[in-house]
Amino acid sequence: MARRYDSRTTIFSPEGRLYQVEYAMEAIGNAGAAVGVKSNEGIVLAAEKKITSKLLEVTKSSEKMYVIDEHIACAVAGITADANILINKARLSAQQYMYSYQEPIPIEYLLQLICDTKQGYTQFGGLRPFGVSFLFAGWDRHYGFQLYQSDPSGNFGGWKATAIGANSTAAQSILKSDYKEDISLKEALSLVIKVLSRTMDSTTLSPDKLELSTLSLSDDGSEIVHHQLREDELETLLKEANLLAPPKPES
Amino acid sequence: MARRYDSRTTIFSPEGRLYQVEYAMEAIGNAGAAVGVKSNEGIVLAAEKKITSKLLEVTKSSEKMYVIDEHIACAVAGITADANILINKARLSAQQYMYSYQEPIPIEYLLQLICDTKQGYTQFGGLRPFGVSFLFAGWDRHYGFQLYQSDPSGNFGGWKATAIGANSTAAQSILKSDYKEDISLKEALSLVIKVLSRTMDSTTLSPDKLELSTLSLSDDGSEIVHHQLREDELETLLKEANLLAPPKPES
Amino acid sequence: MARRYDSRTTIFSPEGRLYQVEYAMEAIGNAGAAVGVKSNEGIVLAAEKKITSKLLEVTKSSEKMYVIDEHIACAVAGITADANILINKARLSAQQYMYSYQEPIPIEYLLQLICDTKQGYTQFGGLRPFGVSFLFAGWDRHYGFQLYQSDPSGNFGGWKATAIGANSTAAQSILKSDYKEDISLKEALSLVIKVLSRTMDSTTLSPDKLELSTLSLSDDGSEIVHHQLREDELETLLKEANLLAPPKPES
Amino acid sequence: MARRYDSRTTIFSPEGRLYQVEYAMEAIGNAGAAVGVKSNEGIVLAAEKKITSKLLEVTKSSEKMYVIDEHIACAVAGITADANILINKARLSAQQYMYSYQEPIPIEYLLQLICDTKQGYTQFGGLRPFGVSFLFAGWDRHYGFQLYQSDPSGNFGGWKATAIGANSTAAQSILKSDYKEDISLKEALSLVIKVLSRTMDSTTLSPDKLELSTLSLSDDGSEIVHHQLREDELETLLKEANLLAPPKPES
Amino acid sequence: MARRYDSRTTIFSPEGRLYQVEYAMEAIGNAGAAVGVKSNEGIVLAAEKKITSKLLEVTKSSEKMYVIDEHIACAVAGITADANILINKARLSAQQYMYSYQEPIPIEYLLQLICDTKQGYTQFGGLRPFGVSFLFAGWDRHYGFQLYQSDPSGNFGGWKATAIGANSTAAQSILKSDYKEDISLKEALSLVIKVLSRTMDSTTLSPDKLELSTLSLSDDGSEIVHHQLREDELETLLKEANLLAPPKPES
Amino acid sequence: MARRYDSRTTIFSPEGRLYQVEYAMEAIGNAGAAVGVKSNEGIVLAAEKKITSKLLEVTKSSEKMYVIDEHIACAVAGITADANILINKARLSAQQYMYSYQEPIPIEYLLQLICDTKQGYTQFGGLRPFGVSFLFAGWDRHYGFQLYQSDPSGNFGGWKATAIGANSTAAQSILKSDYKEDISLKEALSLVIKVLSRTMDSTTLSPDKLELSTLSLSDDGSEIVHHQLREDELETLLKEANLLAPPKPES
Amino acid sequence: MARRYDSRTTIFSPEGRLYQVEYAMEAIGNAGAAVGVKSNEGIVLAAEKKITSKLLEVTKSSEKMYVIDEHIACAVAGITADANILINKARLSAQQYMYSYQEPIPIEYLLQLICDTKQGYTQFGGLRPFGVSFLFAGWDRHYGFQLYQSDPSGNFGGWKATAIGANSTAAQSILKSDYKEDISLKEALSLVIKVLSRTMDSTTLSPDKLELSTLSLSDDGSEIVHHQLREDELETLLKEANLLAPPKPES
Repeated sequence: MARRYDSRTTIFSPEGRLYQVEYAMEAIGNAGAAVGVKSNEGIVLAAEKKITSKLLEVTKSSEKMYVIDEHIACAVAGITADANILINKARLSAQQYMYSYQEPIPIEYLLQLICDTKQGYTQFGGLRPFGVSFLFAGWDRHYGFQLYQSDPSGNFGGWKATAIGANSTAAQSILKSDYKEDISLKEALSLVIKVLSRTMDSTTLSPDKLELSTLSLSDDGSEIVHHQLREDELETLLKEANLLAPPKPES
Repeated sequence: MARRYDSRTTIFSPEGRLYQVEYAMEAIGNAGAAVGVKSNEGIVLAAEKKITSKLLEVTKSSEKMYVIDEHIACAVAGITADANILINKARLSAQQYMYSYQEPIPIEYLLQLICDTKQGYTQFGGLRPFGVSFLFAGWDRHYGFQLYQSDPSGNFGGWKATAIGANSTAAQSILKSDYKEDISLKEALSLVIKVLSRTMDSTTLSPDKLELSTLSLSDDGSEIVHHQLREDELETLLKEANLLAPPKPES
Repeated sequence: MARRYDSRTTIFSPEGRLYQVEYAMEAIGNAGAAVGVKSNEGIVLAAEKKITSKLLEVTKSSEKMYVIDEHIACAVAGITADANILINKARLSAQQYMYSYQEPIPIEYLLQLICDTKQGYTQFGGLRPFGVSFLFAGWDRHYGFQLYQSDPSGNFGGWKATAIGANSTAAQSILKSDYKEDISLKEALSLVIKVLSRTMDSTTLSPDKLELSTLSLSDDGSEIVHHQLREDELETLLKEANLLAPPKPES
Repeated sequence: MARRYDSRTTIFSPEGRLYQVEYAMEAIGNAGAAVGVKSNEGIVLAAEKKITSKLLEVTKSSEKMYVIDEHIACAVAGITADANILINKARLSAQQYMYSYQEPIPIEYLLQLICDTKQGYTQFGGLRPFGVSFLFAGWDRHYGFQLYQSDPSGNFGGWKATAIGANSTAAQSILKSDYKEDISLKEALSLVIKVLSRTMDSTTLSPDKLELSTLSLSDDGSEIVHHQLREDELETLLKEANLLAPPKPES
Repeated sequence: MARRYDSRTTIFSPEGRLYQVEYAMEAIGNAGAAVGVKSNEGIVLAAEKKITSKLLEVTKSSEKMYVIDEHIACAVAGITADANILINKARLSAQQYMYSYQEPIPIEYLLQLICDTKQGYTQFGGLRPFGVSFLFAGWDRHYGFQLYQSDPSGNFGGWKATAIGANSTAAQSILKSDYKEDISLKEALSLVIKVLSRTMDSTTLSPDKLELSTLSLSDDGSEIVHHQLREDELETLLKEANLLAPPKPES
Repeated sequence: MARRYDSRTTIFSPEGRLYQVEYAMEAIGNAGAAVGVKSNEGIVLAAEKKITSKLLEVTKSSEKMYVIDEHIACAVAGITADANILINKARLSAQQYMYSYQEPIPIEYLLQLICDTKQGYTQFGGLRPFGVSFLFAGWDRHYGFQLYQSDPSGNFGGWKATAIGANSTAAQSILKSDYKEDISLKEALSLVIKVLSRTMDSTTLSPDKLELSTLSLSDDGSEIVHHQLREDELETLLKEANLLAPPKPES
Repeated sequence: MARRYDSRTTIFSPEGRLYQVEYAMEAIGNAGAAVGVKSNEGIVLAAEKKITSKLLEVTKSSEKMYVIDEHIACAVAGITADANILINKARLSAQQYMYSYQEPIPIEYLLQLICDTKQGYTQFGGLRPFGVSFLFAGWDRHYGFQLYQSDPSGNFGGWKATAIGANSTAAQSILKSDYKEDISLKEALSLVIKVLSRTMDSTTLSPDKLELSTLSLSDDGSEIVHHQLREDELETLLKEANLLAPPKPES
C-alpha cells in the first residue's frame, strides 16, 4: 500500500507520512556510525571508518569529519557526495556571516540554514532528499559548547550526547545509561570509545577503524581548539579501554 | 476510489476533495498536541513534549513554542522542519513590516501572509502541502489579545480556546465544556493542564513532558510579556491540579 | 470512462467536458450556502455559518462576507483558503485602479480580472481550479446596484437574485418564484431569510447560524453603506419571519 | 484505440489527428448556436440565449455578443470564460494597433493574432485548446464588410454566411440554400431568424431566447453603427416571420 | 510494439524511428494536394481547394497560397493553423533580412530558418511537430527560379517538379514521366492541370476546385510577377486540357 | 526487459546502457552511407545519394556534403534535419572563432563543441539525441590533414579511413584490409569507389548515385581546395574501376 | 522490486539506495580499465586501449588520458562523451583559478568542483548521472604527489594505488598485495604493467593495447613533467616484464 506514495517527495501517504524522507533515513542507517558527546570542557566527535581499502586509500583530511569554521566541526553519516554539497554551503555561509557581521556565525543559525535547504528537498518536485545526517559541534560566547544533530527531513535538535548512522539506536541507549551531567572531556572520550566498540560491526576496534576529534578551549580559554587524534593517541585510548587486547567476548 | 485522486495537490476528486491536504492533516493528527486558551489577561499556549530522548536532548529554546515578534508567539503541531520554514517567513515578515511602517505587524495580516503561502502549496504542481498547524497568540492595540489557528490548507480562524495535533477533538470538547467567557489567566493555565492531562498519551503528566508559555501585559500595561514556565512553575501547577500524585484512574 | 480525462485541467474529455472544473464545482456544492438579492434600494447578501465550533471560535470580521472596496462587498462559498487568495487580489486591484484613475474600479471590470485568473487555472498544467464561487455586490454611478455571481470556471454573470453553495438549486427556485421586480430592501431581507430557512441543513434558523449584510446608499445618497446585521437585528428579522418559533414542520 | 492519443495537445494519433482539438470542438457543438450573415449593407450576428435562468439573471451587456472595437463585433459559441480571455486580448490588440498606427486594426490581422494564440494552445505541452469558436464581423475601408469564423484549432476563414455551435451543420445547409448574393440587411435579418427558428432546441422562438445585432454604416456612410436589437424590435421581426404564432409544425 | 514509442517527439523507437514525425506526415497525406512545377520561364504552384462550403465561404486572399515576399511564394498542405504560424515567421524573417542587409532574403536561407524551427519541434519535449508541408517558389539573381519542398521533420530539398498532400505519390510519378527539362511556363501549367485532374478525389476538375498561381519575371526581366489565375483563366486552361468536357473515363 | 529503460535519455538501464542513444545509432544504420579516407595529399569524402527522386530533385549544393569553413568539410549520415542544426552551429562557431582570434578554428576544438552539444542531448530530460553521425575532414597548419568521426552519443575520434551509415561495418573491414599508410589521393579515390560499390544496396554504381569530394592543398600549398567531383569526373573514376561496365557478379 | 525505484535519480528505494547511480557504475564496470599508482617520485597512470579499430583510428592526443593543467592529469573509465564535458569543466576551472589567484588550482579543490557537479546530476530531476569515473593525478607544493579517484555518485577519495573500470576489483587486490610504501617510479611502472596484464581481457599485452603516462618532477625539481610513453618505451617495459614473449600460461 505504501508503494503508491513512496516515489516522490511531493506527496503525503494517507497516514500523513513522507516515504521518500523515510527511505533517505534508511540510507543513513546503513552508513558508518558517528557519535558525539558534549562535556563542559569540550565536545568529542567520533566516526567509524571503512577499513576495507585502507591500505591504499589516502585521506589527508579526515574522511567523515569536517571543520566548518574556527568554532564549528561536524561529523557525517550517509552519502558522502550529498554531505559535501551541504558542508560547502555551511562553510560559505559561515564565511559570509563573518564578512557581513564581523563575528562568528551562531551555531543554531547555521543549522537552521542547512536544515531549511534540507527541508526544501523534501517538499519540491524533481528533487530527492539529501541522504545525510550530521552532528555539528560548536562553541560560542553565549551558549558555550553545543552539539546538534540534523536528519534528512531538515529536523535538528540540541543534544548532550547522541549517535547517527548504523546501530544508532543501540548507541543511543548506551549513551543514555552511561552519560552523566558532569562528564569530563577525558571521560567523554572513553564513553565514545565504549559506544563504538559495542556497536561497530567489526569485531575488534583498532586505530585505523575510527576517527576521533575534539573541540575544546585552549587552556587560557582564549582560543577554540580543533584536535583530531593521531593513531598513537587512539591506540593509547583503546589500550586504556582494554580494547586492543583480545576482543572482548561480551561485545 | 480515492486513490486516483490522492497523489497530487493539483487535482480535485470527483466529490470535490483535495486528498493531499487531508493527508497532510493526518500528519498533524499524529503529532504532539498543542493547546491555546485566551483570557482577558493574556493567552496560554501549551504543548506536549516528546519525552523519549529527554535525558540527552538539549533544547535551549523551546521545542514547540516560538516567539515570532515582541507581540506574537506561536505553538506548532506537525512536521518541525516544515514549521521552521514558515516561522522564519513569519519572523522576517514581522521585521519587514516594522521596518516599513514603524509599527508592529497586525496579527491577522501576518496570519494571512503565512496562510497564503500554505494555500499556494495546495494548488500548484510539484509541491506538497506544509504538514503543520499553528496556534498564533498575539496582542495589539486595536483588538487586544488574539488567538488564531491555521491548518495545512491555508485556512485560519480566531478562537477563544482551541487545540491542534493528537487527540485535538477530545481536547476541543473539554475546552468547550469548561471554558467560560471571564476566565482569568490563572484559570486558563489550569484549564490547559486539565486538557493535556486527559488527552496526552502518556499516563502521568510531568514537567518534562510539557511546555507552557503565557503572553500577557506587564502590570502597568506598557509592555507585552512572553513567559515560558520553568520546571518548578510547571511542578507547582501540576501539584495544584493533583496531577503529580498517582495517575488519575479516570483518565 | 470519465476517469481517463478527469485528473488534469489541461484535457478535454471526448464530449468536450472539463472534469476538474466540474469537480471544483462539486466542492462548492458541499460548502455553506450564500444568497444575494438585489433591490432598487440596495443589495442583501446572506450566508450560512458553520455552527459547530461557534462557542469558542471568534471571528472579528465576518466569516464568509468580505468588503472588497468602499463600493463592493462579496460573499463566498467553497474553500476559504482559495477565496482568500482571490479576495486579496480583488482588494489590491481595486486600490491600484483607484490610485491610477482616481475613481472606484468598475464592478464588472473587477469581476473580469478575478475571473480571468480563475480561467487560467482551468487551462494551464500543474494547477488546479480555484474551488470557490463568489457573489459580488456593488454600486456605481453608471449602473447603480449590481449583483454578480462567479464560479470556478471563470464564468460570471449579473443577477437580480441568486444563490451559490449547498442546495443552491432549491434556493434559486424559491428566488425565482418569490422575487419581484420592485422588491424593497426590507422585502429582500425577508426573502433571503425565507430562502435560507428552507434550504439550510440545520432544522431551525438562529442568529448564530447566519451572516447577513446589506449594501445600500445613505439617506442623502451621497455615501455607500456596508451594514452587517448584529445578532439582535437578526433575531428581530427571524421573529418577524416566525422562524425562531418551533421549527416549521413543512421545511 | 484513439484513447492512447487523446489526452494531450502535444501528440498526433497514428492517423495524424489531434484529438484534444477535436474534443474542444465537441465542447462548442454543445454550446448555444451563433449565426452570421453578411449583406452589402451590413452584417447580422445572432445567438441563442440560454433561457433557463432568465428571470433573475441580468445581463447589462449582451451575453454572447461583444464589441471589440468601433469597427469590429463578435459572437461566441463555447466556453464563456475561455472566450473572455481572447476577447480581452482582441480588444487590447485593437487599441494598441490604433495607438501605434493611428488607424483601425485590419480585421484579418486581428483574426490572425487571435488564431495564432489559439494555435499555440494546440501545440505546446501543459495547456488545453481554447474551447471557443468566434464569428467576427467588421468593416474597413479596403474590404468593406467582412465576416470571419474561427475555431479552437486556430483555423479561420472569411464567409458570406455561416453558423457555429449547436446544430451548426443544419444551420449551414439552410444558409447555403437560402443565401443569395444581393441579400439586403433586412433579408439577412429574416434569414437569420429562419435559421435559428429551425435549429434551436427550444420549440418556439421568443425575443428572450435570442440576441441579434447588426453592424452597418450610418446613412451618410461616415460612421460604423453597432446596433443590438431591443426586445420590441425582435418581436416585430418574429411576427413578420410568423414565428411568434403557434410553433411551426414542420420545424 | 510501435505504441511504446509513438507518443512523444523526444524518443526514438528501437528501429531508430520518430513516430510522432511520421504521424504528422500522415496528417499531411490527408490534406488537399499541392503541386509545383519549375520551368525556365517561371514556376507554377497549384493546390486543391476544398469545395464543400464554397458557396458561402469568402477567401479574399487565396486559401492555400501565400506570398512571403516580393520574390517568394508558397503553397501549403496540412494543418492551416500550423502553416499560419510558420508563414508569419517566414514573412517577418524576410522583412528583417531586407531591413538588415538591404537585399532580398536568399530563398534557401529562408527555408533553413523555417526548417530549423520545424526540426526543434521534433526534438524538444512538450511540443508536437508542425503538421504542415510547404512548396516554396522563388527567384533570385544568383540561382534564378527555385522550387523547394519542406516536410514536418524539418527536411527540405530543391525540386524541378514535386507534389505534397493527398495522393502525392501518384502525382509525383506523373510528374516524373511527363516533366522535361526545357518545359515552358505554358506547358508547366498544362502539366499541373493534368496532375491535379488525375489525382484529386473529385471526379471533375472545375475552376472553383483549384487555385493556381505563377511566379515569373516581367517581360523586361526587371520585376518579379506573382500572378494568381482568375476563374476565367482557369476555365480556359481546363478547356484546353479537355477537362471541362464530360469527365474523362480513364481518370 | 530493456523496455523499462529505453524511452528516456535520462536513465541508465541496469546494465549501464543508454538505450535512446543506441536507438539513435539505429537511425543512422538505416541512412545512406558515407566514407572518408585520408591520404597525405588530402582527404576524400564520399556519400551514397538517394536515387529515387533524382530526376526531379534539384540539389544545388550537395545533399550530404557540407563545407563548414575554408578548411573544414563534412559528410553526414542520419536525419538530415538534425544534421542541419548542428552544421549551422558548426559554421557559426567557426566564424565566431575566426572573428575572435583571427585564425581558423582548430578542427578538434570544433568537434569538441559539436559533440558537447550532442552529449547534452543524451543527458538532459525532455530531449532526444541527435540522430546523426558526421565525418569531418579538415586541414590545419599544426596537424595537417585530419579526419574525424562523431556519433549521436557525442563520442568522436580521429581516423585514417572510416565509414558511417548503412553497412558501415562491411565498409570498415574493406578499408582495414586495403588501406595503406602512404596512400595517394588518387588511390584514396579508388578505394572509396571500391568501398561504396561493394556496400551500397543498389547493384550498379552510377555517377548519379554518389557524391564525392576532396579536400586538398593547391599545388603551391598556399590554399585549401574543396573540390566536389562533377558527373563526368565520377564517370571517369567509375570506368577506371570497371564499375560502369556490366555489374560485377561478385558484389 | 528494485524496478519501482530504478528509473529516476530523484528517488530512494525503500532500502535507501539510488539505483540510477548504481546503474551508472555498471556502465563503468564495462569500460576499459584504468590504473593509477603513486610513488614518492611521481604518479603512473595507465589505461586499456580498445584495439579493435586501431589500424585506422588515429588518436593524436591520448584516448583515455587527459592533461587538465600543468600540474594535473587524469585517466578516464566510462562514457567518453560524458568525460569530455567534465574534463572541459575541469580545464576551465583550473584556468579561472589561475587567473583569479595567480597560482595553480589545489587538486582537491578541483576534485570537489567536479564532484559537486556529479552529485547534482544524482539529485535533480530530468537528468541522469555522469557515466564516468576518473583518476586524477597531480602535484602541488603543499601535499606533493596526489592520486584521487571519483565515481558517478560524486564521491572521491585519495589513494596510493587504485583501479577503475573493467575488472577493477581484481586489479585492486593485486595492487593491495604488491604495493609497498617506498615504491619507486620505475617499480610503479612495472606494477601497473603487471596489473593490466592480469586483468585485461585480451590474452597478450602489446604496446598498442595500452596507454601509459607519468607525472613527475624534473631532475632539479623545478618543473612538473607530463610524460606519455611512446610505443618503443612501452615495448621495452613489456619486454622487461616478460610479457611480450609467448603469453604467460598462468594469466
